[in-house]
Amino acid sequence: MFQIPRGTRDFKPAEMIKRRYVEEEMRKTFISFGYKEIQTPTFETLELFTAKSGESVIEEIYSFKDKGGRDLALRPELTAPVIRFYVDSLQMEPKPIKLFYFGNCYRYDRPQKGRYREFTQAGCEIIGTETPEAISELIAMAYKILENTGLKNINLNIGNLKILQAIFKKLKITKDQQKYIIPLIDKSLYEDLFDALIDFKIDSSEANQLIKILDTSDIKEIIDFVKNDETAIDEIKKLEKIIDYLKNIYKIKNFNLKMSIVRGLDYYTGTVFEIEAAKLGAEKQICGGGVYELIENFGGRKTAQAGFAIGFDRTILVLETENFEFPEIKTNVYVIPVNKDMAKNALEITEILRNENITTDVDLLSRGIGKSMKYASSINAKKVVIVGPDEIETQSVTVRNMESGKQEKIKIKELAKYLLG
Amino acid sequence: MFQIPRGTRDFKPAEMIKRRYVEEEMRKTFISFGYKEIQTPTFETLELFTAKSGESVIEEIYSFKDKGGRDLALRPELTAPVIRFYVDSLQMEPKPIKLFYFGNCYRYDRPQKGRYREFTQAGCEIIGTETPEAISELIAMAYKILENTGLKNINLNIGNLKILQAIFKKLKITKDQQKYIIPLIDKSLYEDLFDALIDFKIDSSEANQLIKILDTSDIKEIIDFVKNDETAIDEIKKLEKIIDYLKNIYKIKNFNLKMSIVRGLDYYTGTVFEIEAAKLGAEKQICGGGVYELIENFGGRKTAQAGFAIGFDRTILVLETENFEFPEIKTNVYVIPVNKDMAKNALEITEILRNENITTDVDLLSRGIGKSMKYASSINAKKVVIVGPDEIETQSVTVRNMESGKQEKIKIKELAKYLLG
Repeated sequence: MFQIPRGTRDFKPAEMIKRRYVEEEMRKTFISFGYKEIQTPTFETLELFTAKSGESVIEEIYSFKDKGGRDLALRPELTAPVIRFYVDSLQMEPKPIKLFYFGNCYRYDRPQKGRYREFTQAGCEIIGTETPEAISELIAMAYKILENTGLKNINLNIGNLKILQAIFKKLKITKDQQKYIIPLIDKSLYEDLFDALIDFKIDSSEANQLIKILDTSDIKEIIDFVKNDETAIDEIKKLEKIIDYLKNIYKIKNFNLKMSIVRGLDYYTGTVFEIEAAKLGAEKQICGGGVYELIENFGGRKTAQAGFAIGFDRTILVLETENFEFPEIKTNVYVIPVNKDMAKNALEITEILRNENITTDVDLLSRGIGKSMKYASSINAKKVVIVGPDEIETQSVTVRNMESGKQEKIKIKELAKYLLG
Repeated sequence: MFQIPRGTRDFKPAEMIKRRYVEEEMRKTFISFGYKEIQTPTFETLELFTAKSGESVIEEIYSFKDKGGRDLALRPELTAPVIRFYVDSLQMEPKPIKLFYFGNCYRYDRPQKGRYREFTQAGCEIIGTETPEAISELIAMAYKILENTGLKNINLNIGNLKILQAIFKKLKITKDQQKYIIPLIDKSLYEDLFDALIDFKIDSSEANQLIKILDTSDIKEIIDFVKNDETAIDEIKKLEKIIDYLKNIYKIKNFNLKMSIVRGLDYYTGTVFEIEAAKLGAEKQICGGGVYELIENFGGRKTAQAGFAIGFDRTILVLETENFEFPEIKTNVYVIPVNKDMAKNALEITEILRNENITTDVDLLSRGIGKSMKYASSINAKKVVIVGPDEIETQSVTVRNMESGKQEKIKIKELAKYLLG
C-alpha cells in the first residue's frame, strides 16, 4: 500500500548488526587516535552548501522552505556543516582540534547500483595544524579505521596538489586548460589527455612527460621534474617525512605516490589521499581526504585544516565482497514453557538469564514445544531451555544445544553459568 | 556568517559521549530482551503520515517534493515507517517479531525549551501477540531500559482504553462528548471535566463517580464499576496478570493504575502505559506506548501489535537533572616530545600505546613542554608521557600523573602495562 521513497533503504536486523559493528569499530579507532565525536543537524541552510560547492550543487540537493521562507537543505556531505559548527562555537578551543562524526547524507540523483539517495558517511577534521606529523597520523588513521573493520584488500594513494600545480606551471598549462584536462587526469584517461594537450599546442614530448610524471610512483622522478620550484620542493620535503612516518611508524606498506589525484581543486591545498578497495571496480574509492582551506570562506579565522570522508555503505559492501565474517551474538537463548501452566516459570527463568546479560527470548504465546522449537531455529537461538513440571520439581530445566542436538538437565541456579561457559 | 537552522542543535564532544552512552545502554537492554534492531529512511512519502495521523499533521511536518513530483516528508515519528517496512518486507517472518530502532524525527513547530525541530526517539514493536506475557515483558523492558541508563526517579502508569470505553459507556458519554473531554482527562483537569460533564446534562454524582474512577489506582474499585461489561472484565483479567508479572517477575514496584491515560484513541486498543520522570515538570513524560492496531490500515494482514517510544533527548535531560555521572575515558594519555628532534620518537611511543587500545594523543606541532602541558589539561588527559633524549637513551620516558602531579621514569616496554594498571 505505502512504498519506500525511491533510492532509499530499509535495514533488516541482519544488516543492522553489520552496520553497528562497523560503526563501533570505526568509532573505537577514531577515539584511540584522540579524535572526539560531534554531530550536526540533518539539514542546514541551502546557502551553506552553495558557498562550498557552487550553485550547481542545488541540482543534486533535497531542499525545502522554512516557515520563515528560508531555504533549507538535507546535507549532501558533512564537511560544510562541521566547519559551520567550528566557526560558530569551537574557534576558541585549544588547537589542534580533532573531530570525527557519522552522519546520513542525501543526494538527489538517479538511483543506481551501490548509490543511494540516503547514504552514510564517516569523517573527521583536524583543525590547527598541517605538520607532516599531523597529516601522516591522519592518513594512517584512515587506513587503520578501514583495516580494523576487517578489510583486507585496500590500497592507499597519496598525491599533492601544490606539486601538481608546479607540474602544470612548468608545462605552461593555463588555468582554463587545467579545467578541461583535470577530469581526464582524475579518471586516468591518458590517451584523451594526450590528445587534449596536443590540441593545446603542447609539444608531444612534453605531453608524454606530463603523463609519465602523473603515472610514476618514484618520488625521485617527481623531484627531478619540479626541482626549480621552491613551493613544490617544500611540499616534497613534507611528503618525504609523511612517507617515512607511514612506513616506519605506522607500518603501512601498500601505498603509492600518485600525482594524478585531483580532489576539489578549489579548496584542497596540499597533500591529498585516497583509499580504494580493489574488489569494488568502478566504485572502488572508499575514502578520500587531505589538506584544505575552507574556514576563511565560512567566516572563520584562517587556520590549517585537513580531514577525510569514508563511504560507510561502501565499506560494508567491500566487507561482504571479501566474505568477512561479521560477529554474531554468542549466547542467544530461547526459553520454552511446555504448557500454559509453565508460562510464569519460563518468564522467571528468562528474567534470571537477562539479569546475567544473556540475550534471552521466551515463548510469549505458550504454544507448545513443536512450534516453539521451530521459532527458536528461525531466530537463530544457540540454546533452548525447556521448562516443564517434572524439571521444576527438582529446580531444574532441560537445555538443548541447537547445533549438536544434545540435551542436558541443569539446575536453575547453575543455568546462567552453564550457558555462558 | 552561516547559521544553524532554527530549532536544531550541534552536539559537542562532551554531549556526544552522553548520547552514545545512553544509546548503547538502551541497545544492550533491547537486545537482552530478544529485540532486533532495524532502520528506516529519514524521509517517507507524506501520505504515510497522513494515513496514520490525519491531514492536520501536515502543519507540523517538513515536506518537499520528489523529482517525480511526489510529496515526501521528514518523518515526525517512527511507528508509521516501521509498519510500512513490516507490511513491505517482514510480514512472512515467524511471529512474534520483536523490533527496535533509534531515529531522528522532525517537528515543524515553534522551538521552545526542551523541544527541538530535530529530535531523537528510541522505540520498538512486538508484532504477532498481545498476551499478558508479551505486554508485561514490553512494559518491563521500557522500565528497565530507562533504569539501566542510570535514571533514578521514574514512575510507571498503566491504563487500558477498553476499560476506559466501558466507563464512558456505563455513564452514557457519547463519542462526540468523549472528543471534548479527552484532552481534559489527558491533562487531569478534573474541575474543567466536571463542568463539562454538567454541561452535557450528566448527573453531578455520576460526574464525580467518573472523576473518582479516573483517579483511583485501586483495581477493585474499577472492577466494581464495570463489572457488567464483559469486554472490560476480560481486559481487567489480563491487566491483573500483567500486574502480577510486573511485581513478581520483573520486581517493579513503583507503578500505578491510571485509567485517565488516553493515548491516540484512534489506534490504541488495549493496555497503555506511560513512564514519567518526576523531576522534569511539564515535560515529564519520557516514554509512552501500549497495544494498538495499525497494520490493517497500512495494507497488511490484521495482527496483534504493541510498542512504545522513548524520548531520547529527554532521557539525557533527566540524567543531567539527576546529576548522573556519565562514564568517561579512563586512560587518556598525551605524549609530548621535548623538542623537534624527539617528534618521531614521540610518534613511535604513541603508536605502541594505541596498538594496546589506549586512547592516546600526541603533540603534532613539537611546541615544547609548556604549551603542550596546557593543551594536555584542556583535553582532559589523565597521564602525560614526556619523551626526551636522556630518557630515550635508557629506553625510558617520564610519566606524569595529571591529578597528583607525581612523575615517574618508566621503561618504554613496560609503559602500556603501567598506564593500564
